[in-house]
Amino acid sequence: MTTITWQSVQAEALRRIRSREWPPGAQIPHEADLATELGCARATVNRALRDLASAGLLDRKRKAGTRVPLNPVRKATFDIPIIRLDVQARGLPYTYRLLHQTTAAPPPDVAQRLMLPGDTPMIHILALHLAANAPFCLEDRWINPAATPHITTADLSEISANEWLVQNAAFTAGDVALSAIAAPPATAHHLNCPPGAPLFTVDRTTWAGATPITCVRLCYAPGHQMQAKI
Amino acid sequence: MTTITWQSVQAEALRRIRSREWPPGAQIPHEADLATELGCARATVNRALRDLASAGLLDRKRKAGTRVPLNPVRKATFDIPIIRLDVQARGLPYTYRLLHQTTAAPPPDVAQRLMLPGDTPMIHILALHLAANAPFCLEDRWINPAATPHITTADLSEISANEWLVQNAAFTAGDVALSAIAAPPATAHHLNCPPGAPLFTVDRTTWAGATPITCVRLCYAPGHQMQAKI
Repeated sequence: MTTITWQSVQAEALRRIRSREWPPGAQIPHEADLATELGCARATVNRALRDLASAGLLDRKRKAGTRVPLNPVRKATFDIPIIRLDVQARGLPYTYRLLHQTTAAPPPDVAQRLMLPGDTPMIHILALHLAANAPFCLEDRWINPAATPHITTADLSEISANEWLVQNAAFTAGDVALSAIAAPPATAHHLNCPPGAPLFTVDRTTWAGATPITCVRLCYAPGHQMQAKI
Repeated sequence: MTTITWQSVQAEALRRIRSREWPPGAQIPHEADLATELGCARATVNRALRDLASAGLLDRKRKAGTRVPLNPVRKATFDIPIIRLDVQARGLPYTYRLLHQTTAAPPPDVAQRLMLPGDTPMIHILALHLAANAPFCLEDRWINPAATPHITTADLSEISANEWLVQNAAFTAGDVALSAIAAPPATAHHLNCPPGAPLFTVDRTTWAGATPITCVRLCYAPGHQMQAKI
């Protein structure tokens, strides 16, 4: 007697989806029926379909049964590591340089992203992260001191605001926008690249519940890649 | 008597993490002890901690208990929609233009990404996706016909390879790399932008089990943003 593995059930389910034997929009057989048909335990079918569901290839609803989605929306997941760890994971020595720190009212677009009145005094940080002494990422950050009162005791020339906030201002939610920008002259100067060079750019705003913590623009030196898995 | 909600337990747990009452690296109390301390059901504590764990603020291990991670790695999730739906979700009419279709041996970097011998004949597609008649995204794609035999019957001037593959070649895994590139002259011509303009670029390779399906470079017109949630 051969044992039917969940991997072989998964391969068979995948074959039926790809051959359109189970066409887009259609409900697939119940787990118990599939188990009988394929000669395996129901738990084996359940295990086989779980990965397909989490990959977006099947849509499992508690009461409505399992369907092949009409327009599957696949999801990719990206790690958002501390910049120091991102550099060190590339096998390169990391250094950090605080370029500028002040307290000021933020520009209107920053106040709007943080949903704070425009005259709220905030901490502004400009800092350069280096990999093997070459510019890696320019961090331009506004911090809401009301959300992070301890930050006044932090020496941000010793530890980056990126790292200090991760350790001291746990956030519950964040928005991220990724884009490509032409390096503005000042940014190009700090990143040691020609003005107008294409820069991979991350704009991030984070919140602790309803309290805005920080909004940051990270401009990476030309050639940067961000990897993800589907 | 007041009922303790899971939301209030979550707020309290978050306060303890942020105040370092539960410092990085420390194990937090058992769920049962927290339930007793806070005067609520154990299920309420479990529900409260679940989101914090999935957000990376707590690290739950079946046997070792729950800890505050030393270096939390946050994860962001991106949708990967069909390009047509991405355009239409922006409220813009979508059109599509097949620029070029041929069968040829792929360039070495493509063969390497797909882990196929360099002399494997593959389908090469160059296509332009438009939003309100303006260039939105240039798709440069290689398809492994061995993984998708039906593609020879598809009219890729009527339906984009992007959409045809989503409907007909379900994939189980994929790699994505995001970057910013300077528009090469031919790409700039198709996207109607100056050569050297910064382009947000997605390189994606997808697989059905061990079989490579396709590898694609998507270059978006200048100004494109990709949104994600943490």
